[in-house]
Amino acid sequence: MIERIIPFTRSLLTQVLTKDSIVVDGTAGNGHDTLFLAENAKHVYSFDIQQEAILSTEAKLKAAKLRERVTLIHDGHEKFASYVSEAEIDAAIFNLGYLPGSDKSVITLADTTLKAVEDMLAALKRGGLLILVVYYGHDGGKEEKEELLQYVEALPQKQYDVLRYGFINQKNDPPFLLAIGKK
Amino acid sequence: MIERIIPFTRSLLTQVLTKDSIVVDGTAGNGHDTLFLAENAKHVYSFDIQQEAILSTEAKLKAAKLRERVTLIHDGHEKFASYVSEAEIDAAIFNLGYLPGSDKSVITLADTTLKAVEDMLAALKRGGLLILVVYYGHDGGKEEKEELLQYVEALPQKQYDVLRYGFINQKNDPPFLLAIGKK
Repeated sequence: MIERIIPFTRSLLTQVLTKDSIVVDGTAGNGHDTLFLAENAKHVYSFDIQQEAILSTEAKLKAAKLRERVTLIHDGHEKFASYVSEAEIDAAIFNLGYLPGSDKSVITLADTTLKAVEDMLAALKRGGLLILVVYYGHDGGKEEKEELLQYVEALPQKQYDVLRYGFINQKNDPPFLLAIGKK
Repeated sequence: MIERIIPFTRSLLTQVLTKDSIVVDGTAGNGHDTLFLAENAKHVYSFDIQQEAILSTEAKLKAAKLRERVTLIHDGHEKFASYVSEAEIDAAIFNLGYLPGSDKSVITLADTTLKAVEDMLAALKRGGLLILVVYYGHDGGKEEKEELLQYVEALPQKQYDVLRYGFINQKNDPPFLLAIGKK
């Protein structure tokens, strides 16, 4: 009844995406988000620092015959501006922290995360949406979360809506969602 | 694009309500929620401690020819159990804090709020929904908010989903939403 984090993320994206949308997946991971974006947009730029993630995302896209809609980039999302020259991005999604079900030693870090978020917001068009899914149940996760919250809480409300969506009675540091809409 | 608090509240209620629903408005206030509930449910029990709120809600209902669907109760929502004998409530909404645009000296208080929430959850049927819209920009508001958060964060996750939904980059203590789903 009350949408979980991932379905709610998709509901938000579905409202924004059209067949002409240019979008970014900042953390390809297992490829689920990239595939969803490829199904619902014109073109996806999909980043990951792990070769394995790039390969498994590529396999998923090929199986769905959507490979040509995606530029796969084996690098960190903080390098976004070096790879993408599109002036205006319609939507982006970053999974922050670790990839659930995988090696918790490969994590995003506050410095690169904040740079990636900042650059992404600059590239977002008006009416565009940046979604951050924040996993923080790992070493250093709470610090990254706090720095990120401090940053987004300070975004000027005339330019951005920052929604926090999360379940607050769950154990084991469940992920929560930050949805940033550019006005 | 990202739904504000009140529209999101209505989206959640719309998903739960049917023509057979029995619902509660814990704080009639200006009558907007009671009217919305009357339009979308079988019967509404609507409480307010202010006679003025009861009268203005009654006027709204009469104008919409929905007066007979609502039992108006001039008392606090913490007295819920004394007035309502229905075994199972489908949904309820409480606005906590003060009534926006009105006298900030008439406020809800932590003690009565917690009793009202506790009784309401007990009366809620499985699959039912309790929505709390929390205004806290008044004297004592932050204390009420903290006590309430402590209470809902401790609700067992096997029995309840507790969603917090709010914009976190706004000035002047904007209200936020707590949606509690009973499993």
